[in-house]
Order: sequence, then structure tokens, then C-alpha cells
Amino acid sequence: MSGKLSEEKVFKDPVHNYIYVQDETIWELINSAEFQRLRRIRQLGTSYLTFHGAEHSRFSHSLGVYEITRRIISQFEKSGFSDWPREERLLCLCAALLHDLGHGPFSHSIERAFNSDHEEWTCRIVLGETQVNRILRKADPELPEKIAAVIRKTYEKKIVVSLISSQMDADRMDYLLRDAYYTGVDYGTFDLERILRMVRPHKGHIVVKESGMHAVEDYLMSRYQMYWQVYFHPVTRSGEILLSKIFDRARVLYGGAHTFSFLNDTLRRLFDHSMTVNDYLHLDEALMQVAFMQWTKDSDPVLADLCGRFLDRRLLKYVPLEESEIPLTRGVRDCLLKVGLDPDYYMYLDFPADLPYDVYKPGEVEEKLPILLLDARDQLFEISSRSEIVRSISGIRQGQHHIYFPEELLAAESMPDELWQLLQKRS
Amino acid sequence: MSGKLSEEKVFKDPVHNYIYVQDETIWELINSAEFQRLRRIRQLGTSYLTFHGAEHSRFSHSLGVYEITRRIISQFEKSGFSDWPREERLLCLCAALLHDLGHGPFSHSIERAFNSDHEEWTCRIVLGETQVNRILRKADPELPEKIAAVIRKTYEKKIVVSLISSQMDADRMDYLLRDAYYTGVDYGTFDLERILRMVRPHKGHIVVKESGMHAVEDYLMSRYQMYWQVYFHPVTRSGEILLSKIFDRARVLYGGAHTFSFLNDTLRRLFDHSMTVNDYLHLDEALMQVAFMQWTKDSDPVLADLCGRFLDRRLLKYVPLEESEIPLTRGVRDCLLKVGLDPDYYMYLDFPADLPYDVYKPGEVEEKLPILLLDARDQLFEISSRSEIVRSISGIRQGQHHIYFPEELLAAESMPDELWQLLQKRS
Amino acid sequence: MSGKLSEEKVFKDPVHNYIYVQDETIWELINSAEFQRLRRIRQLGTSYLTFHGAEHSRFSHSLGVYEITRRIISQFEKSGFSDWPREERLLCLCAALLHDLGHGPFSHSIERAFNSDHEEWTCRIVLGETQVNRILRKADPELPEKIAAVIRKTYEKKIVVSLISSQMDADRMDYLLRDAYYTGVDYGTFDLERILRMVRPHKGHIVVKESGMHAVEDYLMSRYQMYWQVYFHPVTRSGEILLSKIFDRARVLYGGAHTFSFLNDTLRRLFDHSMTVNDYLHLDEALMQVAFMQWTKDSDPVLADLCGRFLDRRLLKYVPLEESEIPLTRGVRDCLLKVGLDPDYYMYLDFPADLPYDVYKPGEVEEKLPILLLDARDQLFEISSRSEIVRSISGIRQGQHHIYFPEELLAAESMPDELWQLLQKRS
Amino acid sequence: MSGKLSEEKVFKDPVHNYIYVQDETIWELINSAEFQRLRRIRQLGTSYLTFHGAEHSRFSHSLGVYEITRRIISQFEKSGFSDWPREERLLCLCAALLHDLGHGPFSHSIERAFNSDHEEWTCRIVLGETQVNRILRKADPELPEKIAAVIRKTYEKKIVVSLISSQMDADRMDYLLRDAYYTGVDYGTFDLERILRMVRPHKGHIVVKESGMHAVEDYLMSRYQMYWQVYFHPVTRSGEILLSKIFDRARVLYGGAHTFSFLNDTLRRLFDHSMTVNDYLHLDEALMQVAFMQWTKDSDPVLADLCGRFLDRRLLKYVPLEESEIPLTRGVRDCLLKVGLDPDYYMYLDFPADLPYDVYKPGEVEEKLPILLLDARDQLFEISSRSEIVRSISGIRQGQHHIYFPEELLAAESMPDELWQLLQKRS
Repeated sequence: MSGKLSEEKVFKDPVHNYIYVQDETIWELINSAEFQRLRRIRQLGTSYLTFHGAEHSRFSHSLGVYEITRRIISQFEKSGFSDWPREERLLCLCAALLHDLGHGPFSHSIERAFNSDHEEWTCRIVLGETQVNRILRKADPELPEKIAAVIRKTYEKKIVVSLISSQMDADRMDYLLRDAYYTGVDYGTFDLERILRMVRPHKGHIVVKESGMHAVEDYLMSRYQMYWQVYFHPVTRSGEILLSKIFDRARVLYGGAHTFSFLNDTLRRLFDHSMTVNDYLHLDEALMQVAFMQWTKDSDPVLADLCGRFLDRRLLKYVPLEESEIPLTRGVRDCLLKVGLDPDYYMYLDFPADLPYDVYKPGEVEEKLPILLLDARDQLFEISSRSEIVRSISGIRQGQHHIYFPEELLAAESMPDELWQLLQKRS
Repeated sequence: MSGKLSEEKVFKDPVHNYIYVQDETIWELINSAEFQRLRRIRQLGTSYLTFHGAEHSRFSHSLGVYEITRRIISQFEKSGFSDWPREERLLCLCAALLHDLGHGPFSHSIERAFNSDHEEWTCRIVLGETQVNRILRKADPELPEKIAAVIRKTYEKKIVVSLISSQMDADRMDYLLRDAYYTGVDYGTFDLERILRMVRPHKGHIVVKESGMHAVEDYLMSRYQMYWQVYFHPVTRSGEILLSKIFDRARVLYGGAHTFSFLNDTLRRLFDHSMTVNDYLHLDEALMQVAFMQWTKDSDPVLADLCGRFLDRRLLKYVPLEESEIPLTRGVRDCLLKVGLDPDYYMYLDFPADLPYDVYKPGEVEEKLPILLLDARDQLFEISSRSEIVRSISGIRQGQHHIYFPEELLAAESMPDELWQLLQKRS
Repeated sequence: MSGKLSEEKVFKDPVHNYIYVQDETIWELINSAEFQRLRRIRQLGTSYLTFHGAEHSRFSHSLGVYEITRRIISQFEKSGFSDWPREERLLCLCAALLHDLGHGPFSHSIERAFNSDHEEWTCRIVLGETQVNRILRKADPELPEKIAAVIRKTYEKKIVVSLISSQMDADRMDYLLRDAYYTGVDYGTFDLERILRMVRPHKGHIVVKESGMHAVEDYLMSRYQMYWQVYFHPVTRSGEILLSKIFDRARVLYGGAHTFSFLNDTLRRLFDHSMTVNDYLHLDEALMQVAFMQWTKDSDPVLADLCGRFLDRRLLKYVPLEESEIPLTRGVRDCLLKVGLDPDYYMYLDFPADLPYDVYKPGEVEEKLPILLLDARDQLFEISSRSEIVRSISGIRQGQHHIYFPEELLAAESMPDELWQLLQKRS
Repeated sequence: MSGKLSEEKVFKDPVHNYIYVQDETIWELINSAEFQRLRRIRQLGTSYLTFHGAEHSRFSHSLGVYEITRRIISQFEKSGFSDWPREERLLCLCAALLHDLGHGPFSHSIERAFNSDHEEWTCRIVLGETQVNRILRKADPELPEKIAAVIRKTYEKKIVVSLISSQMDADRMDYLLRDAYYTGVDYGTFDLERILRMVRPHKGHIVVKESGMHAVEDYLMSRYQMYWQVYFHPVTRSGEILLSKIFDRARVLYGGAHTFSFLNDTLRRLFDHSMTVNDYLHLDEALMQVAFMQWTKDSDPVLADLCGRFLDRRLLKYVPLEESEIPLTRGVRDCLLKVGLDPDYYMYLDFPADLPYDVYKPGEVEEKLPILLLDARDQLFEISSRSEIVRSISGIRQGQHHIYFPEELLAAESMPDELWQLLQKRS
């Protein structure tokens, strides 16, 4: 059984002003080694290369998701909503706090390179022999399994899942506000207090009172702007592409029994796909950066060069492409070879459609629960059926092809004229 | 010769909104490997252990100091002040940008442990065989030496020094605003725009028009609050103390030819006091954190334990002490021995008077140039001679003794009753 | 000839931080009786009845429009754009400052009731025997006529007109930011600094560099939200409708030689459509409120009742209507008669399409100059041709019919059931 | 008996984000004619003449005081503090909402001129035949008398009085934040949320937990800055002095049976000291401004001139004086006579010590309850006994003599040279 702290604990937070902890279990989870590790993993991966202020960690974000969840539940309890299952409070708070526990350094790039999945790692940490697991079991022996079910979206009470993972969940609400704060952009703001007042439990779902529709519209417009102007920023993508290429190269070398200038057990098991939970917990951005730093002196020139580019922020250039121009880029491979660069590692044709963010699309019901509004007659409707602005935004597909290449490419002799025009003029 | 960029570059910054770069030299310096390294060093050392949002780097701060300096100079030029030596513009901008270049990871602790000095390292990087040096020399062969002179406060034109280093310099103005923003506290705000409008060059000094006195008062009150509530926060100190103990232990072990679970060339030369500029540039927080992480598995139990405490944020406890209570703490050493902990590494009696920050004290003229106001009759006076509030604040000495100790101490058997009262009741 | 002030004057402003005055003429205009009168006229008419914080005056807004214009021009001059006619600087600043000089109290309602036009009054004040006219002529004998031409949009240099009056002019930019600040809503914010950096003169127009497109999108999204959630708020409309009814009733009574409980020369000439400039300058919100207050004791019960409702904020209720439901409301007249209320003064069917605000519609070229972007190849294009989000927003027509009626109506006996359902359920 | 609203009502507020109303009685009070009247009275009197943004009304402030009180009580109830008398909730909320109900237009000046007292008027309105009285009696027949007792600080439970009126009451906390917001100055901010969390009921007083001491220090520093830089601003004082002179002149004329160009029953009874509650409720800023406007055409040249100066903001000039320079100002009377101005109405020697604001002074216990802190051992102490910064601020007396005079004075012939130096040089 988890008890209440004799005295409420507070964290000063730039986004929510204060984060309040009232439960012993939450307090212990925050102080666990596995949760403290999140301080060593940036929330926004390579975005700090575009927005220098965006150096905040997943630790800050996780506290924020917890706090929003706490406020929602506190509102539910205060209002005495009968559709709210009060016994799920601690589960919700723990799941909110821990939902990103399995994130590794530069998650997106590493997950692609090593075919891992942070949600699965979250479950393994929660279920494994960890401090977090011990703390959870002390509160309730079934809590670890329940949290894993919430993370995997298989928990039977969908209302718990939708608090943590839906089109307008505590996770998204925190990261939009937090990422806007730390990057310094003006787009990410919306009226969180209004939304928190307007959400309520309703027949197993979280819904929003219709009178909160404008606040939801504003949230979706913020999200739209953040996606295109922060999350999909091509400079950030350029950093991610460089990371992917480093991992690709390192894997190839590892397969070829290369002697690395630096390699420890953690990295070795990462390459071997044989990481234990304990190994995984040693994987953080510090380790990756030290590896990259040592690899700048590696005997493999490609690995050394790519790592140097990343650390010193000498990123790949990019130009936007119309779909009709894509065939033109075939010439890039030849030109790269002419300047002595391996095309497998020095170019990338990108279309940011496979990224982990999305603008609101009401159709995608299976994946993420849509936003439901509750009108005065207690009827539910999906927001885009009533909001013209949401309908307008949802229909937009702004994805743009980009080609990424090193600046040296422009020095290639005898580049096809049309290609040169394309690359030189627009970059 | 340094030229102007064909197009002004901008950085989005949460504190100053935008940072503008118009000079080629500044642009190249920002993109140099040595300056990019500052992204891997936190501005506030261990403060993130108290204020989780304070994860910003010296890179962000350095850009901010540059921007404030740029705005001041731009104001001077626009106003056509004859006391402003226009030819010093680029020197001022470069010195502002680079003034923290020599900071290492957890500077304060490392400097104490290894008797190094970040200002000296800044000079060595600026003068050594580095990208920064090359870029500066391209603009003006004497620029590196001049910058070193500004950093060392020996540059003949004191007005240049006082822009970068005085009681109200661009450095302090940026860090008060920035640290307030990232920690989320409300204290650090003051009216930067007003101050920038009120400063002017006057007979070789930077002075403030008397009508800006209230804004300066507000700046000094912010500084007062930030020092006591952020910079000297005992939890932050606790982190620093742990770091110092780790370094102390590692040095002792290194002297004793211990075989570390991790040690690379960079660290080896740190211990040997034989670092070159190139070594120093490899020293960043990532390396220290990886070392600590590996040392948690070291064969030396003290080193392993201290590193684990730091990484997992199991900090030392503390209680405030009256001066008369200090003798009581002699008993702590015995008690630590009883619970099997070496007092040399597990306790610390702290008085935060030897720290790198200070509240404004008008007497300390030699160290930092005082704040001079210029009245309507063109007479200068030191601010505290006219401002009662500055006089009041300056006279306050709030330093407080604290004793730091591990929580386990409280479990020591047969602790003197008076000591137990002291430690248990207040912690 | 207008000279420079020996010392720059500043106004502290919550929206722009500081407003700077460098010209004698501007300083004198601000201190003129006619400009000071704007302190007695609220910027947002009846919006304070919805958003209690929105009590700011046209004086504040006018200073803000001046300041934005000053910053734009200062940017143009600093950048040395050859397409900028430098000799028009003072004209632009004066026109920006004075553009709302002719606004009367509760402009929208009064203009409708008395068929007046605030832009025409601005011109009459600028051209008449006023302090403003004297100050302008002192600077340049042709300045009054030029300002009138800018206000009437007939000034030959369109670039001057477009600074003051276009789809993204200084007027709109200030009021969106200012109204958001004073109402406290989050919607009205956009990146003013970015936009100011991106606008430039180009062949007689003000255009925006293409790289500023996202900031313009954000501005248009803010505008969209402000229109529907602040400017068209039905409670604000309810206040305006009440005002219109008061004016209607007073006009009818005046035509019938009624003896008012209060009437002074200013009001008499308002009713007579015989106001001189001097009369008009005596017309402010204080006078209207005193008239309303005295009229609460008028012998005409309708006038007395309407004025009491307005002063005590007992507004008309409202319900939204589908177009198909409009015929239903015919029954309201009968019901009002049954409860003893004159339908001519106690009901209103509203469709907010004829209001003085609009969402961006690219087609309306004649009225307001559209937003033109300038791409890297120096080609101009209208923003909606390239921005999907602007295209989406522009197509939306969110206007909604509302019926306004007094609460007493619901007490009417034998109301048609369908009507009662409509009014009772939704209000 | 007062009930709960079926649905919580919200007001959007720029300072507190939202203001929540849950009680029928509060909702009805807000909608009463007497409370709506506060919309027509500015919070900061003549401060808008210095800070143009400061146009907010006592209506906004009163809602804010209510909201802070509501949050404090809600916190008390949630925490289950046994020292909190729960039955006093509605009384506290009503008293908070209504505490400024008796303010008239330009309160400070009118109270001095007509020897009235806004707190007494608040009581008369609450106890008289008013809507407010009816609403209160409906909730509890004794409520009007209780509220009057709270306003008069005679209510037996001091804890209720101290919520509304003490050194750190809801009134001050709201106006510091609100006035800072509307003027745009940076000084008035402090950590309201932290203070609200730290206050608690303790043996009949409101006290603050010692761990909230820094937040209280910050509040007192804000208050210090606001007093000297906003409330005592000499331009604001200049407006107040002009108002006092207008009232002085009007009273003299009224005593002499002058025929005013405008006078209605309300004003007549103001001059006669025979106002009923009903008269008083007709007294608002609109009425005063209309009177001033009409009086600009009065046959008495002094009254006409003073009113014109006020409306057009042609204020009196001022210069600061050392105490030793005061005798010099005797010459001003003669000089005024030389330029044809009556010294009784055109000069004023001011020392802002008799003003309705004060910096915290712990000694003044009788007037305002001091700030008590509660330490970990449940002992109370007055804050300045432990806080050096509060002690420092409290000791400061910054009052400064000023002489106010019309600009024309400087044109006086044969002014004593020393006086001319004084007035000319410093103004």
C-alpha cells in the first residue's frame, strides 16, 4: 500500500510553475536510479542543433506529464464524476511518470538503427529487477503489470490508456508547452487550464465539454505549428540523418570485426542486440557522445569523419525538392564518388512522413483515440465534425521532400548543370 | 579583415527572442569546434539537481552575452557617443562570445580539485593552435592577444574590459535572466531594455544615466535574490561537494597507482596536470559522466559509492548551523567511522563565502569595477552613495554554515544526544 | 519644419515595453487636447462587458500603432532599402498616430445609429481648427492634407497607405497583441519582431520575405482566433445591440420633441446631425455614460429601462440559430408583446457578417491590400497561393445567426412549444 | 441560505487567468448594480496620466481580491486545517469581493476634499437599501452587519479581518500584481502560488510557514519598488494635486453661490455633504469628467483653467527639493502673482508621507497586522526579526519633498535667481 507523504513535496518547474508530489510511491519513483537516468537523455534529440535552448531532458518532461495527469485526476475527484474509477489514480500517476522511462539517447535514430522500441524497454524496466519495480510492487504487487499494460495500450480500462496516450493526452500537452518554452518559439502555447477544466470522464473515455471546443482548436493549431516549425525542422532532421549514418557505419564495421578506438560492454551488447535491462540503463547520451568523441580518432575514415561532423555541428546541407525533381538527384551519387565520399553515408533523400509526430487526423482511430466533445444534450461527436478549423488543418499534408548532402558536393567537377542549379541555388 | 555577412543570421533564443549575427568572424567563431564544445557543458553545474529545468549550456549563455554586448554597442554607435572607441567593436563582440570558452565540466569543482582556472584556459584556447585562433587571426593578426588581454583584464582600454567584466556587465545580465528563465524562478527579472538605453561610454568607463537608477536597483535586487535562492542553494552545494569528494578520491587513487575501471588519455593527463589545449577540448560533461558511470563498478568502494550517489542523485543531507554549534560537529567524524564511512569523503562543513558569485559590494573596487551613475550635471557617483536600497542590500551578509553528511549517519549508534538533536531535527 | 527632441521621450507600454518618441511634432501631437481625448474612449467598445480586463483606451492603441510604424521605418532606414521613400517618414508616423483620432464613444453603434464615419471625422479634425492641425502645419503646411489623403487611402504613394491600412498593417498588429493582452486570452500572440524584420518596401508596396511566411501564418491564425473568440463574442454583441436600441429610441424620442431628463448641446447636435468638429471633440464615453445614467430616470419607460440594463449589465440573452430555425423566431414578437415589451427594442436577429472585422480573405483586393511575399528570386506571390494553412483558414465562414431577447421573454405565457424549447434549452 | 451554482462560472482574467464563481450569492453580487458601478471607477486614480496602460477598474481588482481569497480558503479546506473556521467562508468571500464597493471616482482626492471615507461608504452600501444588501440578507440575515464589521476591522474573529486587511492580504496581493500588469512595469511580480501554499490559519491569525520566507521577502521587495516607482510617481501626484485644486475651487465657488456651467443633484449633494447612498451610487468617473468638461466653459476662470489642464493633461511641473531648500520656495507665491495666477490653486509643496500606501514597517502593529512566520517548532516570529532584507527595506525612508507649479511660472519676470536655478535646472 502506498501512503501519503507527511508533507507535500514540490518541484519548481518553468512550465507548470510547481509540480506537486503527495504520494510516497511517486516520490520514491522520482528518486530511483532508473528515473534519474532520464536527466541524461534530451527530450528533443537533435533539436538543440536548430534551437540552442532546447537542451531539456526527458526527466523534466516526465515530471510535467505526471503533473498534468495529477491535475486532471484531482479535478475529477473534486467534481465527483461518477464515471471516474477512483481506484485507478495511483496507476495513472505512475504510468504518466514512467511512460518515457525506456527512452534511450537520440531515441528516434537508435530505434531505427537497432530496431528497438522505447515502449518495450519501458515495460522491461518496469517489469525487471529494478528499483522502479521494487517501489511499484511495494505499493501494489500488480502495479508493474498494470503499468506495462497501460504502456502497451492493452489495459482493460481504456480511460486510463487515453489519459496517457490519445490525441490530447497529458504527454502531448506537456511536450507542446515545454518544447515551446525551451526552444523559445511562440507557437506552442494554448490554454491548458481551460482544457483541464473541460475534460471529464464519460463512459470509459476522456471527453471534452463542447464549451471547451475553442481551447481544443487552439491546442490543435499549436500542435500544427510546432510540428512543421520545430519537430520537422530540416536542420534537426539533418542531425538525425547524420546520427543514423554513424550508427549504420558502426554496425557495418562491427559486423566486420573492426577494432574500434572505443567500445565498452554496453555498446558491444547494443550492436549484438543482446542488451539486458541493466545494460540498457547504462546507455545514455553521455556514453554516445564519448563514443563519438573517441571515434573521431578511429581508423575508419568514414566513422571518424561522420562523428566529427556531428560533434562540431558540421551538418549536411539540404534543399527542398518537388516530386518531379527527385529523379534529378540520381546524379548525386556519381558526384559524391568524384569528391571521394561514399554515397551510402553522405546523402539522404528524406520525406518526413515516417516520423513519430503527426498532425491531428480524425480518421486514424485505431492508433490514437480521437478527440470527442460532449454537447449539452450529452451526445458525443468527434471534433472535426463540428469545427471547421480542425477540419481544415486535418486535411493539410505539408510533407516536403528534401535531399541532404555534404557541402563538399558542390565542389564536384562536371556536375550535371540542372543538378547544380538545384543544389546551389536553393541551399 | 572581417567582413559583414551578405545576410544577417539569427538564432531563436528564449531569453532575448533573437540573437543577430552580422559579422563573418562571429559566424565562423560560433561554428568552430571549440565553441560548439560549450554545448556539452552545463551553464549552472550541479544546479539541475535542485532546479530540474536548469539544463542549459554555456553555449546558450555565451550567445546571450554576445547579443547583449552587440545591443549595447549598436546603441552607442547609433547615438554617436564620442567617448566610444568604435574601432573596438569586433574585439568586444569576440571577447563577449568567447569569454567562457575555457570552462570545463562542473567548473567550480574541477578547478578546485585540479587547481586550474577557466580564464587561463580561455586564453590558451584563443592563443593556441585552434580553429578559434585561426578565425581570429584571419580577421586581425593581433585579435587573439587582445582578447586574452581583455579576459585577463589587462587590456589598456578599460572600457572594453568593463563591458565584459564589471559589476553590471553583459555576462551577469545574461546569466541572471537566463538562469531565472531555465530554473523557472521569478526573481531574476529586471528591465534589460531600460538598462541598455541608459548605459553610455564616459571617459573610458561604462556608466549609467542617473534616470536609470531604479532599473539598476532592480537589477541588484534580482541579483541578490538569485544568489541566495538559486546559486547558493544548499542542494546545489551538496552536489558540488559530492563532486569534489569524487575528484579528491580519484586523485588519491591515481597517486597510488590504482587500476581504474575506466581511464582514458584525457583523464590521465588531467590527473597528471599535463593537459594540452587539445586534451582540454576533449574534457566535457559527457566524459565525466561516463567516467562516473564506469567508476560505479570500480574496485575502490569509496569511489564506486560516491559516483553512484552522484549519478542517482542520492546527495548528502545538510543542516544549517549557528557559529556556536560548529564545535558540536566534531562528533560527526566518530559517528561516520562507526557506520563504516571515511569522514574525509562523507562530511563537509561549508560556508559559502568562497564561491564565485557575490552580491554587490561597492568597496571591492579592485576586483570588479563598481556601478557609476552619471547625473544631469555630468558628475559621476557610485550608486550606493545615492540609493538607500543598494546601501541596504550591500550591507547584508547572509552566509550560513551548513554541515553535509550522508543519511546513513543518522543510523549511527551512540551518537552524542546533542548532535543527534541537531542533525535529526533540522534535516 | 519638425526637429528632433533634444532628448528621446519614452512611454512605458505593457505590449511593446517602451514607446519611443524622437520627433518634436510627434511629442506635441501626443500632448494635444484632441489626442488626449482618446483616453476617454475605450478601444474595444463593449468588449469589457465580456472580458472585464479590456478597459484600455484608443490612446494606448494609437501609441502602439505609432510605435510599430516607427520600428518598421527605422528598420527600413537602417537597412538602406532603396525602395523606401525616406521623405515620407514623418507623414507615416503622424498618420499612424492619428489614424483613430476621429473615433467616438462606442464607435460601431454610434456610427450605425447616426450614419457617421470615424475616418471622416479623423480627417475633419486633422484639417479643422484644432491643436493637431496647428502642430502639423508648423511642421509642414501640407501635412494635414497629406494625412487626410492617407486616411482616405487616396494618397498617391501606396506604400504609405499600406503601412497604415492593409491586411497586415501596424494598426492590426497592434490591436491583436494589445487586445489579447488586456482581455487575457492566449490567442492573439504572434512573433512581431520576426515580422518586423521580414517586411520591406518593394516597388511601391510593403512585402514580406518568403522566409517570414510561417510568422505571417501565425499572425493570420491569431487573427482568426481573435475574431471569433473576442471580437464577435455574442456577449459583446449583446452590449452593442443594447446600445443601438438606446440610440434608436433616443432618436425617435428626439424626433417627437420629447423632454429628456438630460440633454446638452453636444448631444442635441448629435441628434440634429449638425456637429462641428468642436462638438465632436466633446463627445466621449463619459458623456454617453452620464446621459445613460440620467436617462434611467427618464419619463420614457423604454429609454429608462434600456439604459438601466446597459449600465447594470443586464444584457439580452441569446441563442445560436441554424438558418432553418430562423422562421421559428417570428413568434418572439408576439411573446414580447404579451410580457409588455416592445419588439422593436427588445429583440434582435443577428448575423455578424456586417462587422468591421474580417478574417483574411485574399480575394478582397480592392478594400485592403493583400499580403504579398517576396521569394528568393525576387518574385511576388499572394500568401494563400503558397500557404495551405492560410488557404484553409480563408475559406472558412463561421458566421452564426443568433437571436437576442430579454430574459423576461421566457416567462411569456403560451409561447409556442417549439420556440420555448429553442430559447430555454440553449440559453 | 446561499447555494452552489449548478454550474461553475468563470471570468477570464489577465492576472489570475481565470476567476471561478461557485456560489449563487457571489454570482448575484457580481451582477448587482452597485458592483457593476465599479467598472466606472479606475483602480489607480490618476496613474493613467503616467502609465497610459493603467486604465483598469476597481471592478477587475475586486474580482481579483475575491479570487485570491477563494484560493486561500480552498487551500485551507483541502488541507483540513483545524484552526480555520469553515463557517466563515461565505463571509470572507463576500467581504473580499465588496471591500472596495464604497470607492468613488478619484477616491484619494475626493476623500480629502469632502472629508469622506470609502470604507464608511462601503458599509453604508452594504447596510443600506441596495441590491447588494438584499442579496446578502437572502443568504444570511446577519451577513450585511458581519461584512460591515470586517470592513471596519471590528469583527470578532480576527482571522477573517486579516485575510482582507493585513500586511499581506488578498487586497494587496491582487493590486501589486494587477497594477504591475496594467502599467507594464516589471517590479510587481512575486510568487503568488508559493505564498498561497505557505499561508495557514494558526490560533486566530493567518501566518506563513517559515519555508515560504523567501517568497514573502520577494513580495515585500516588489511592494517596495511599486510604491516608489508607481504609486508615488510625481506625475501621478501632479494629477492628484490638480484634482484637489479643482475640488477646492469648486467648493469655494459653491459656498459663494456661484452659478456653475454644470451641476446636477448628485454633485450638489456632494458639495452639501448630504449624499444618500443612492446619490453616492451615481457618483462615478464619468460624471466627474463630464463636470470637468462642462466647467472648462465656466465663468470662473480658475475653475475653467484647472479643468482644462486636467482633461488635456497639461499637468503642473515639479522639482525635487532638499529639506534645506524648502524656504527658497516662499518666493514662488510672489512670482505666481506676477504671472497672474492665484498661488492657492497653482502651487503645492508635497511630501508623500500622508498617502494611502506604505512600505512594510513592522512596528505599525495597531494599523495593519504584521506578517508572522511559523517555524518548524510551531513558534511564531515577526518576519523582520529573521529576514535581513526585510529589516533593511523597512528602515528606508525615501520620501522626497517636491514643489509643483505651472510651466508659466518660469516666465515670471524678476524671479529670485536662486529660485530660478532651482526650478529651471531640475524640471
